Amino acid sequence: MKKGNETMRTITWNDEKQVIEMIDQRILPQEFKINQYDHYKGVADAITTMVIRGAPAIGAAAAYGMAMAAFNSDAKTREALIADLETAGDYLNNARPTAVNLAWAVRRMMKAAKEFSGTADELRQHLLALSKAIADEDVEINKKMAAYGAELIEDGDHIVHHCNTGALATVDWGTALGVIRMAHEQGKKIHVFVDETRPRLQGARLTAWELAQYGIPYDLITDSSSGYLMRRGMVQKVIFGADRVAANGDVANKIGSYMLALAAYDNGIPAYSTFPISTVDFDLDRGELIPIEERDDEEVLALSLMGQKVTPEGATARNFAFDVTPNRLISGWITEMGVIYPPFFENLQSAMKA
Amino acid sequence: MKKGNETMRTITWNDEKQVIEMIDQRILPQEFKINQYDHYKGVADAITTMVIRGAPAIGAAAAYGMAMAAFNSDAKTREALIADLETAGDYLNNARPTAVNLAWAVRRMMKAAKEFSGTADELRQHLLALSKAIADEDVEINKKMAAYGAELIEDGDHIVHHCNTGALATVDWGTALGVIRMAHEQGKKIHVFVDETRPRLQGARLTAWELAQYGIPYDLITDSSSGYLMRRGMVQKVIFGADRVAANGDVANKIGSYMLALAAYDNGIPAYSTFPISTVDFDLDRGELIPIEERDDEEVLALSLMGQKVTPEGATARNFAFDVTPNRLISGWITEMGVIYPPFFENLQSAMKA
Repeated sequence: MKKGNETMRTITWNDEKQVIEMIDQRILPQEFKINQYDHYKGVADAITTMVIRGAPAIGAAAAYGMAMAAFNSDAKTREALIADLETAGDYLNNARPTAVNLAWAVRRMMKAAKEFSGTADELRQHLLALSKAIADEDVEINKKMAAYGAELIEDGDHIVHHCNTGALATVDWGTALGVIRMAHEQGKKIHVFVDETRPRLQGARLTAWELAQYGIPYDLITDSSSGYLMRRGMVQKVIFGADRVAANGDVANKIGSYMLALAAYDNGIPAYSTFPISTVDFDLDRGELIPIEERDDEEVLALSLMGQKVTPEGATARNFAFDVTPNRLISGWITEMGVIYPPFFENLQSAMKA
Repeated sequence: MKKGNETMRTITWNDEKQVIEMIDQRILPQEFKINQYDHYKGVADAITTMVIRGAPAIGAAAAYGMAMAAFNSDAKTREALIADLETAGDYLNNARPTAVNLAWAVRRMMKAAKEFSGTADELRQHLLALSKAIADEDVEINKKMAAYGAELIEDGDHIVHHCNTGALATVDWGTALGVIRMAHEQGKKIHVFVDETRPRLQGARLTAWELAQYGIPYDLITDSSSGYLMRRGMVQKVIFGADRVAANGDVANKIGSYMLALAAYDNGIPAYSTFPISTVDFDLDRGELIPIEERDDEEVLALSLMGQKVTPEGATARNFAFDVTPNRLISGWITEMGVIYPPFFENLQSAMKA
């Protein structure tokens, strides 16, 4: 990520202090602060409370969390350590339900642990090295996706973007916002309509801040505006990320993605979902099976506008954090294996064989 | 409107003080305050700054504003008074561009002035009486609409409602929310999903507050959530108001109505627009011709969530206040002449002849 002239990652392992460091995204863009975690339970809590968010970043946090769990355990044998890791894995898996990257990273770390034949201490180092490799891999994958996706973006495009899918949603670079950044770095003149993305406003807080760092022109809009902009001919592309993708191509993503993709479809505007192939959950054959997180209604209710508290005393809310966009509304998947068009499952199979 | 055990109107003419009184909707629900206006320019400013809002309430405010203009003028002759009224009418017409009720009320008052044959002072009294009649008529029309609309609501319905269309959006009773209130008073067990309605959050502020006064159960949702609730089978009806309707049935209403109606259509859920026939602008044959107001970006940017300022320094926004829902997405118009189904123009003609 760029912050002024500095570059840094959303999450890193600090070797000197033996801690995991994360940018605290709850207080951005007003404050920039790095939190340190020396226990996997703290990492799980950071995921739940959204210190770190974004499916790929959550995956990296889970991998680092599993490595930390290995160091938190005082197990003397490989077997005892693996038992402690199982406990930690369950704990981390419960931090947030929708992003598949979390379970994917935990599973990958557990598999590596079980296949490893050295001592407990060697296993600790092995898992730490793997967690760092998973983080590095995320950045590489993102840049590959960005290169493929940028080919779809044309000079002069106005692009609607939902939530935050930038460097802050990943270890670095970003998914959908990474595509936009790559197109900008290629010299294409683009402009972004940034959905503010209620309830947690990751668009208004994080995407606006990132775009300013990269020097990409943007305007914030309320989430309910994009359809009207499309009807006026003010939008050429829609692009967002994914938290979990079913095998048939249905995409679970931040609440509002479905209505956005539907409006794009109604106006003949392409809508792309950008994600690493690890986001596809081949165990779920359709989107209705993806578990959708419902969060505290405070995120909806605790709002002030122009200095005034908004909601009346005693108001209640429903707060689903994600929705599911049916595959018929998605023009293409932007992945590290290229842009995949419908029918998604079949074309993904072909891409994986190639 | 009910406020605890009191009933009152959104806007009234106070005969004793010769002032127009309005509930200040900018500070509801945290504060309840009545503002007084003794000049038509103050009334125009109250419309622009949204002390009073909602198409029918804006119409009544414009009528009262024209009556006030007659008293503000020191014209001695009927002709001189009419000239001053023309000036006031232009001023009021510029207060907000989208709601046709404003221009409709100004036109009706001017027509009455021009057809009147008495003295200047008699004309002042004539216009005051007419403005009161227009306000009374609004309440009557709303109750008629509510009775027709309530027939569409079934016991057990969960209804998505957009913006505020209640007593506060009218002189009293409300349009779309009036339908909901009538169904509730008829004993139907209903529940409302209240779109918070960014940017000005009239749903979260005003509709939630009104529903609490009437004892109707509700939950607030972010505007981007309704599509997902529909896909889960949690919604049976969608209902909203209108600020201006083109002759072909395209409906200009609060931003977000188009995406809401589109989601309803995609899920086979009926979406009704509720308005008095005076909201139809027969001079405009399609929705693209309706002027759409763009407001100060502060309404998008000046947001805090859970005590934290949201947007970064220097952020910019686009802030369209309304959008246009094409007639193909509207299941029916709920009007004082009954529920009118597509094809709207033809069926309205028949209803008007009957």
